[in-house]
Amino acid sequence: MPRIDGRRNDEMRPTKITVGVQEFAEGSALVEAGQTRVVCAASIEEKAPIFLRGQGKGWVTAEYGMLPRSTLTRTPRARAAGSGRTHEIQRLIGRSLRSVAQLEKLGERTITIDCDVLQADGGTRTAAVTGAYVALHQAMLVLVRRGVLRRVPLAGSVAATSVGVVGGETMLDLRYEEDSRAAVDMNVVMTDAGEFVEVQGTGEERPFSRAALDEMLEMAAGGIRELTELQADAARRMTAG
Amino acid sequence: MPRIDGRRNDEMRPTKITVGVQEFAEGSALVEAGQTRVVCAASIEEKAPIFLRGQGKGWVTAEYGMLPRSTLTRTPRARAAGSGRTHEIQRLIGRSLRSVAQLEKLGERTITIDCDVLQADGGTRTAAVTGAYVALHQAMLVLVRRGVLRRVPLAGSVAATSVGVVGGETMLDLRYEEDSRAAVDMNVVMTDAGEFVEVQGTGEERPFSRAALDEMLEMAAGGIRELTELQADAARRMTAG
Amino acid sequence: MPRIDGRRNDEMRPTKITVGVQEFAEGSALVEAGQTRVVCAASIEEKAPIFLRGQGKGWVTAEYGMLPRSTLTRTPRARAAGSGRTHEIQRLIGRSLRSVAQLEKLGERTITIDCDVLQADGGTRTAAVTGAYVALHQAMLVLVRRGVLRRVPLAGSVAATSVGVVGGETMLDLRYEEDSRAAVDMNVVMTDAGEFVEVQGTGEERPFSRAALDEMLEMAAGGIRELTELQADAARRMTAG
Amino acid sequence: MPRIDGRRNDEMRPTKITVGVQEFAEGSALVEAGQTRVVCAASIEEKAPIFLRGQGKGWVTAEYGMLPRSTLTRTPRARAAGSGRTHEIQRLIGRSLRSVAQLEKLGERTITIDCDVLQADGGTRTAAVTGAYVALHQAMLVLVRRGVLRRVPLAGSVAATSVGVVGGETMLDLRYEEDSRAAVDMNVVMTDAGEFVEVQGTGEERPFSRAALDEMLEMAAGGIRELTELQADAARRMTAG
Amino acid sequence: MPRIDGRRNDEMRPTKITVGVQEFAEGSALVEAGQTRVVCAASIEEKAPIFLRGQGKGWVTAEYGMLPRSTLTRTPRARAAGSGRTHEIQRLIGRSLRSVAQLEKLGERTITIDCDVLQADGGTRTAAVTGAYVALHQAMLVLVRRGVLRRVPLAGSVAATSVGVVGGETMLDLRYEEDSRAAVDMNVVMTDAGEFVEVQGTGEERPFSRAALDEMLEMAAGGIRELTELQADAARRMTAG
Amino acid sequence: MPRIDGRRNDEMRPTKITVGVQEFAEGSALVEAGQTRVVCAASIEEKAPIFLRGQGKGWVTAEYGMLPRSTLTRTPRARAAGSGRTHEIQRLIGRSLRSVAQLEKLGERTITIDCDVLQADGGTRTAAVTGAYVALHQAMLVLVRRGVLRRVPLAGSVAATSVGVVGGETMLDLRYEEDSRAAVDMNVVMTDAGEFVEVQGTGEERPFSRAALDEMLEMAAGGIRELTELQADAARRMTAG
Repeated sequence: MPRIDGRRNDEMRPTKITVGVQEFAEGSALVEAGQTRVVCAASIEEKAPIFLRGQGKGWVTAEYGMLPRSTLTRTPRARAAGSGRTHEIQRLIGRSLRSVAQLEKLGERTITIDCDVLQADGGTRTAAVTGAYVALHQAMLVLVRRGVLRRVPLAGSVAATSVGVVGGETMLDLRYEEDSRAAVDMNVVMTDAGEFVEVQGTGEERPFSRAALDEMLEMAAGGIRELTELQADAARRMTAG
Repeated sequence: MPRIDGRRNDEMRPTKITVGVQEFAEGSALVEAGQTRVVCAASIEEKAPIFLRGQGKGWVTAEYGMLPRSTLTRTPRARAAGSGRTHEIQRLIGRSLRSVAQLEKLGERTITIDCDVLQADGGTRTAAVTGAYVALHQAMLVLVRRGVLRRVPLAGSVAATSVGVVGGETMLDLRYEEDSRAAVDMNVVMTDAGEFVEVQGTGEERPFSRAALDEMLEMAAGGIRELTELQADAARRMTAG
Repeated sequence: MPRIDGRRNDEMRPTKITVGVQEFAEGSALVEAGQTRVVCAASIEEKAPIFLRGQGKGWVTAEYGMLPRSTLTRTPRARAAGSGRTHEIQRLIGRSLRSVAQLEKLGERTITIDCDVLQADGGTRTAAVTGAYVALHQAMLVLVRRGVLRRVPLAGSVAATSVGVVGGETMLDLRYEEDSRAAVDMNVVMTDAGEFVEVQGTGEERPFSRAALDEMLEMAAGGIRELTELQADAARRMTAG
Repeated sequence: MPRIDGRRNDEMRPTKITVGVQEFAEGSALVEAGQTRVVCAASIEEKAPIFLRGQGKGWVTAEYGMLPRSTLTRTPRARAAGSGRTHEIQRLIGRSLRSVAQLEKLGERTITIDCDVLQADGGTRTAAVTGAYVALHQAMLVLVRRGVLRRVPLAGSVAATSVGVVGGETMLDLRYEEDSRAAVDMNVVMTDAGEFVEVQGTGEERPFSRAALDEMLEMAAGGIRELTELQADAARRMTAG
Repeated sequence: MPRIDGRRNDEMRPTKITVGVQEFAEGSALVEAGQTRVVCAASIEEKAPIFLRGQGKGWVTAEYGMLPRSTLTRTPRARAAGSGRTHEIQRLIGRSLRSVAQLEKLGERTITIDCDVLQADGGTRTAAVTGAYVALHQAMLVLVRRGVLRRVPLAGSVAATSVGVVGGETMLDLRYEEDSRAAVDMNVVMTDAGEFVEVQGTGEERPFSRAALDEMLEMAAGGIRELTELQADAARRMTAG
Repeated sequence: MPRIDGRRNDEMRPTKITVGVQEFAEGSALVEAGQTRVVCAASIEEKAPIFLRGQGKGWVTAEYGMLPRSTLTRTPRARAAGSGRTHEIQRLIGRSLRSVAQLEKLGERTITIDCDVLQADGGTRTAAVTGAYVALHQAMLVLVRRGVLRRVPLAGSVAATSVGVVGGETMLDLRYEEDSRAAVDMNVVMTDAGEFVEVQGTGEERPFSRAALDEMLEMAAGGIRELTELQADAARRMTAG
């Protein structure tokens, strides 16, 4: 049985990354995956957070928000902002970026990536990881061009996608409608070297077997390879820009 | 002495209104005035607020937010959300819309317009008023198309711009850099019939004379006439769509 | 048709300013305008706010509160304190005072004026502006008497009143009952030199014409001249005291 | 050694109770004890609190606040409002009133007494108890005059004062300066029948003996008898009014 | 008529103090009084609070919490934490400890005692005082063993119990069921020298006579003598440990 | 190289589950894993949460807290309560329990499991999952004994442990000291049938390979089998009790 938008089970949504959409930010990227749209903006602050002061290291962190009407029905501002879900996502994005950022080489500065969802059709947190990496990269290039850093302090790239079991089928890059029916839901963050940064699988409706886990990880790896390509293309546009 | 972007004192920035940018919202509009960009999304709720229940009337209200990196330097999320400035702007937008909305004809429902600033180069509150009107219009058209209302319950249109005294000169549609140097700062909201809905003039740096007030009101009226035209064009695109 | 209390349309309520009502404060004034009563108390702090530190300038700011039972029916404490209306009023009072305060001459100190409404029958924000100016003046005199300043750093005085269109008539100094029926509502802050500091006109019920605006401004100017006289009398009592 | 204002150790400050100072409230009283001034306003709400609904009983409760500049140096609004001290005082006032209020005879309604300190020179919580009782009495008289109740549902009157050990001497009705030096500090609430409602004695600086406790209770009883007289006078003025 | 658990009116519940239950804390004690269980943990911080900095003195303070299901029916976390009752109890515990702590001899450090109720069957605040003293003592012994202090800076011990009038009888150490029916409720904190630190008596249901007060104080003194013995035993186990 | 406490890499800490420790709760369990101690208490409420009302289904949810001095150094109460970490853990526990709870068979009621950490030496969230299951089971048995339910609505049991890569070695059931040095950290929740409920692996310090993931999953499965045995023993004590 085909998916609601006719995709194959292992097929990503049409995805596009636009660099530099926020003119005042040091780095920015708009990620569009089907109807999901997330804008990521990087801000550089010339000091480390308190818990790192004096260690010669920097920090990379992220915040996540949603426009109230990014969702099918309106989500009140306050409810979204303080929620456990928001905290969880912010921590996921931050950890993902720090797994490839070379904090000692960044020096005593903080880069904050704001990921704001303009429209939400599933997969906003993974789109945010993918876009936040691009915004971070561009902001680091700014530091290189300003002569502050010699080279971009990144050990690799990170990208993310979702995968799940819906109606008994393992499917890649779930839309909202699929996600809400999923028996198992998994978010996977991987590097360009094919290693894992985060694996978060949840069987809220029912538990899942080791075989199902393996199949989901395989499918996610394929999708992330495509996103890694898009990120590399975006990086080439930055360098040329 | 010419203005920073070469405009005449009584010249508006290049302004553009795009309708329907938020696909899940009943009405939406993106207003771009130079580098200022505000997205307005209308949500219909099928009940009146508590203070109006049982009176057969509806309500129109607005919320205002800014992406953290819409500004030249990053504004923390929490600081922006709770601020007095935010409350003041939300109330201004709501009152402006209600001055033309026919609440008895709307019936017991609430339309909330979320105005979110993607990029801020001065004039975000007046751009929000101008765009919120368009989003409201589109949402009301949806109610007409659904057969819920017979006609769009609007008595006219509203639009807004800013005007001020900068370096001794009266100037229209201030950018951030001009606004921050303004001795007098005024926001004007007017209808398509050329009447006032709001006049908010402030001489924080020094008081201003009656003559200065008159000159500012004149200049604002001219700018708002142009915006009213753009709104009418946008409305024609809605009807055709 | 006469007004509810028999006043002419352009007549102020009986108004009285008592200086020094708060014995522990550096400056204070009780403003009574009919049944509206606002107590204003000035507190001097020997440091500038963070955003001005090291610039040799001072700051004047205001806070506004209402006793829960200042109103016809009780207003819960928390609801009043955090409200947008409160923020808006505080900002208005602060801007009005700063338009005549010579902040460079004040030196690196902050004067905070607490305006607390004991009883509310309309016009509390404009009474607060009028009384806050008197409390500020007295506190500055204290600095002069202590030998801290050579002269009072004020470039003039400010006072405020409300005006509106009620039942088709333009009326001065609205009581609560009039204000709640007003089609147009305007607050005007002016200096003793007859210049404007703030003009805030709102036509929530319906828009208003330029002619109506002009009539309201004229009437407000007349009322404010009377308040300026009362402030000058109060100042004479301070100097003699 | 005489006290700072020349009083004997067992002498109350000059105290005055003015009834009806808040014109919009159902009951109100201003208590002035030396430089301490507390305004108490009673508000009647025609429903019982949730935990009493349907039991045919009413409730009496109190809130306590201080104007920011009631104190020698300014107390920020937010700090005062949320503090443990404020909660403790509110609970004390409420319990004191309920010890004489006949809640079954009050019917399913709530009377809230707002006690707001205009000026604070020690003893604000005991002045609040004394004044709150008068405001409550007046509000209950209003219910009788409206024909809602047959008679005032009060079993007696309550009043309160403070007593302490300062510099080795037991002293009645402490001012701020005395209170801040007190080794032992006690608040006593009593009825007109000479029985205790609350006894709260604290030896923060050092413990106190049974003999000291007895002496303090004796002295407090004398002071409270005077306050009970003042309350009875105030009640006579209400009945005549 | 015997009490619900067969105790005499002047009989304490079986009570037990276990020292050192929190292995990571500098001092700790579990107090079990019948079904009431409170764990107290002392934390040493090597700085004085801001209001004491530079005076060479230390500070002792307390916090109080309840597990949500310590009570017969669940108490939501947020409601418990912010409540007036919690603030009131924390202040009581802190004052009690400071009445015997020699703050000048403690030096510029803060000891915080966290008192958390595992199970609540009445008397949790007095059990917390009794246990907090033991935890404080143990933490001070740690400072002596580390060579930081020469001797334990305590002028005596403090313990507390409750007493009340239930069904016309004066009873010691009330359980929850008794407390909820009490006409008069009193908490008494005393030193090992038999002096009072706190006396808090409340007649919410009805006022109480001087004779009733005297009887309650007598009974409380007897119960506290037993607790003082248990504390002394606990101290001997610390010294030997 | 042996582990800090001499365990083998695939060896769990000595673990003990005590049932019924909270006498007022419908179900409770104390889990002790080495020095980590978590008390779990189940509360039954006879209504479903708002989002499920009228569907004939019940809900199971969890809250998580830490005593301030459960940690090596004190954690302020407020900081712990509102944190993203706390929200994340609560959601994890709730999802884990719901994966085996038969919500339709539970009927329109809510069971809340409070998991409070008495002492924290790593693995508190996984100990909370393991203990919460036992408390839930006991509470459901209470419903059976009361005749409300025919049988315990559980499709299986769930338990959890942590596993990670520390110093290049894969290790089971990490203590705090090991966890803080871990390059990869993973929490695994499994059923008694050996299926996964949650897999959460994070490589904050560096990414991890598929082989490392497989080894961690294997080791976790072994540990969870032991915990499942302990839960089954605890269940037998309940049934016999």
